[in-house]
Amino acid sequence: MPFKSTFALKMEISLFNIFDLLGTMAFAISGALAAMQRKLDLFGIFIIAFVTAVGGGTLRDVLLGNTPVMWMENTIYIYLIGLITILAIIFRNKINYLKTSLFLFDTIGLGIFTITGVETGIQNGLSPIVSIAIGAMTGTFGGVIRDILCNEIPVIFRKEIYATASILGALAFVILYDLGVNTDLIYIVTSLIVISIRLIVVKYKISLPSFTLSSEK
Amino acid sequence: MPFKSTFALKMEISLFNIFDLLGTMAFAISGALAAMQRKLDLFGIFIIAFVTAVGGGTLRDVLLGNTPVMWMENTIYIYLIGLITILAIIFRNKINYLKTSLFLFDTIGLGIFTITGVETGIQNGLSPIVSIAIGAMTGTFGGVIRDILCNEIPVIFRKEIYATASILGALAFVILYDLGVNTDLIYIVTSLIVISIRLIVVKYKISLPSFTLSSEK
Amino acid sequence: MPFKSTFALKMEISLFNIFDLLGTMAFAISGALAAMQRKLDLFGIFIIAFVTAVGGGTLRDVLLGNTPVMWMENTIYIYLIGLITILAIIFRNKINYLKTSLFLFDTIGLGIFTITGVETGIQNGLSPIVSIAIGAMTGTFGGVIRDILCNEIPVIFRKEIYATASILGALAFVILYDLGVNTDLIYIVTSLIVISIRLIVVKYKISLPSFTLSSEK
Repeated sequence: MPFKSTFALKMEISLFNIFDLLGTMAFAISGALAAMQRKLDLFGIFIIAFVTAVGGGTLRDVLLGNTPVMWMENTIYIYLIGLITILAIIFRNKINYLKTSLFLFDTIGLGIFTITGVETGIQNGLSPIVSIAIGAMTGTFGGVIRDILCNEIPVIFRKEIYATASILGALAFVILYDLGVNTDLIYIVTSLIVISIRLIVVKYKISLPSFTLSSEK
Repeated sequence: MPFKSTFALKMEISLFNIFDLLGTMAFAISGALAAMQRKLDLFGIFIIAFVTAVGGGTLRDVLLGNTPVMWMENTIYIYLIGLITILAIIFRNKINYLKTSLFLFDTIGLGIFTITGVETGIQNGLSPIVSIAIGAMTGTFGGVIRDILCNEIPVIFRKEIYATASILGALAFVILYDLGVNTDLIYIVTSLIVISIRLIVVKYKISLPSFTLSSEK
Repeated sequence: MPFKSTFALKMEISLFNIFDLLGTMAFAISGALAAMQRKLDLFGIFIIAFVTAVGGGTLRDVLLGNTPVMWMENTIYIYLIGLITILAIIFRNKINYLKTSLFLFDTIGLGIFTITGVETGIQNGLSPIVSIAIGAMTGTFGGVIRDILCNEIPVIFRKEIYATASILGALAFVILYDLGVNTDLIYIVTSLIVISIRLIVVKYKISLPSFTLSSEK
C-alpha cells in the first residue's frame, strides 16, 4: 500500500508559524555547531541539531497532550533541520568566524520559542502562570538536552542568566496580552525582550545572587 | 482578551490531595536544598525544586495520557513550590541544622508519591503489577532528575535501598486494597511502610546483594 | 474492591508482536549485562533491564499519543523482563563467556525495534520520512538511556555507526512497503539489514567522516 502523500506542507502562514520556523532554524544551527565541536559524524550532527530544534516544542506538546507531536504531523521540521545541517557543515568555518555564533543562535531560539510556548499555553486555555512556565520550558529545554548530550554543563545552570530572561519575556507577554495589545506586536516586542536581556546580561556579566548553606562555610 | 481566571484552586479536599500536596512540599524542599548545595541562583533553586516536586507525577500523567499534566490543570503546584523555595532560602540554615534533612524530606516524598502513584494506576483500571510499577516510578523519578541535574549519582543507584522500599510499599498497597481495607487507612499504613523501610535500612546499613561477572575478576 | 484480572495476556500472535517481544528480550539482556558490569543490586538490574527494553517503545507511544503506553496495557512486558533479569543473573557467567554478548543483543534489539517503530508510524498514517524518524528513535532510545544511567558514553555517539544502520534499515522498509512487498518478508529482510550493517561496520571498523571547525586547528 503506497503512502498518501510524501510531502506535507500543511502550515498556514501566520506570524506564529514564521516564528516557529525561525526558532527551529536558530536552535538547529546551535545544535549543529555544538555537535561539530564534539567532532560527531554526519548523522550525529543531524541528530543533535534535530533534538535541539524540536526538544522544547516536543516536551510542550507531550505535556499538553497535543499528540502526535508537531514534527510528526508536519514534515517541514525534518526537511528544514536536514537542510540546516548540510548548510551548517558546508559553511561551518564561516559561521564559526563569529566566535559567539553558537551563543547568538541559542539566544535567538530562546527568545522565539519562549513566546510560541506562552502563546500555546494561552491557546489551550491555561492560566497565565502556567503559560509562563510552558514558555520557559519550551524556550530552554532544547538547549538543555543539547548540552547534556554534548557533555556540557547545561546552559540553564551556568552563571549567565538564561531561564530568568525567558521567564521575564513570558511575563511581559501575558501582561501585554491581558491589556489587549495586538498579538503580532506582542510577539516581536517580547521575543526582543528575552534576547536583549540575555545579551546585556552576558555583556555586563550580571548574575543573580546565589545562597550558600552555613554548614559549608 | 483577558484570562478567565488568574488563580484556580480546583482541588477537592480528599486524603489523596492532601498526600499529593505533602509529597510535593517534601520533594520541593529536598530539591531546594540540593540546589543551594550547588550554589545555584534564585531561579535555579526554583527550577530544581519544581522539577523534583512535579517530576514523578508528570511522568505518571504523560505515560497514562492524563494530559494536560496535573500542574498545568491546577496552579496550586506552581504557587506552592514558589512559596517553599522562598521559605527554604529564608530558613536555609535552620533546615540544614539537621544534617539529614535532605535525606528525610526525600524519604517522606518517596513514601507519599509511591502511594498516590499506585492509587492512580488502580483508578485508571490498570493491573496490580503495572500499578506497582507506576507507584515506584512516581515515587522515585523526581529524586532521580534532581540528582542528574545536580550532578550527583542518582539516589536510585546508590548502595542504600531506595526503589526497593518503594516497590515493597506499593506491593503492600495492592494487597491491602485487594483485601478491601479502608483506603484512607491503606494510604497512611503503606506510606509509613516505605518511610520506615528506608530509615531502618540506612540506619543499619542494610543493602541487597549485587552480582559480579566472572570476567571482571 | 478487588482487581478485574491479575494477569492480562491480550496480545494476538502476529509477526509484529513476536518481533516486539524478541526485541524486548534482547534489550532486557543488554540492560541486565550493563547493570551487572556496574555491580548494581537485584532491583537496580531489573530497573536498567526494564528501562532499556521499554524505553524506545515508551517514547514512541508518548510522542504519538498512544497512551497508556504499551507496557501499561499489557503486563507481559513486566513479567518477561522480570524473568529475563533472573535468567541473566543465574547464567551471567555463561552469557558473558562471549565477550561481545552485550554488543550482539544490543544490535538485535536495534534491528528489531527499528522495524516495529517504522511500522507503527505507518499504521498511524504518518509520512515515510516521519516513520523513518520514529523507527530510528524506537530502535536507539533504549540503548541511549541504558548508557546514560550506567554512565557510559551513549552508544549513539561512539565512533561505530549506530543510528545510521537504523536509519538505512528504516529507509529500506518504507521503500519495500511502497513497492507493495509482503509485510512479513519486509520485517525479516529489513531487520537483518540493520543487524548486518552494524556487524560489518564494527568488524571492519568503518566510520562516517566527522567535520571539524577551523578555529580548533
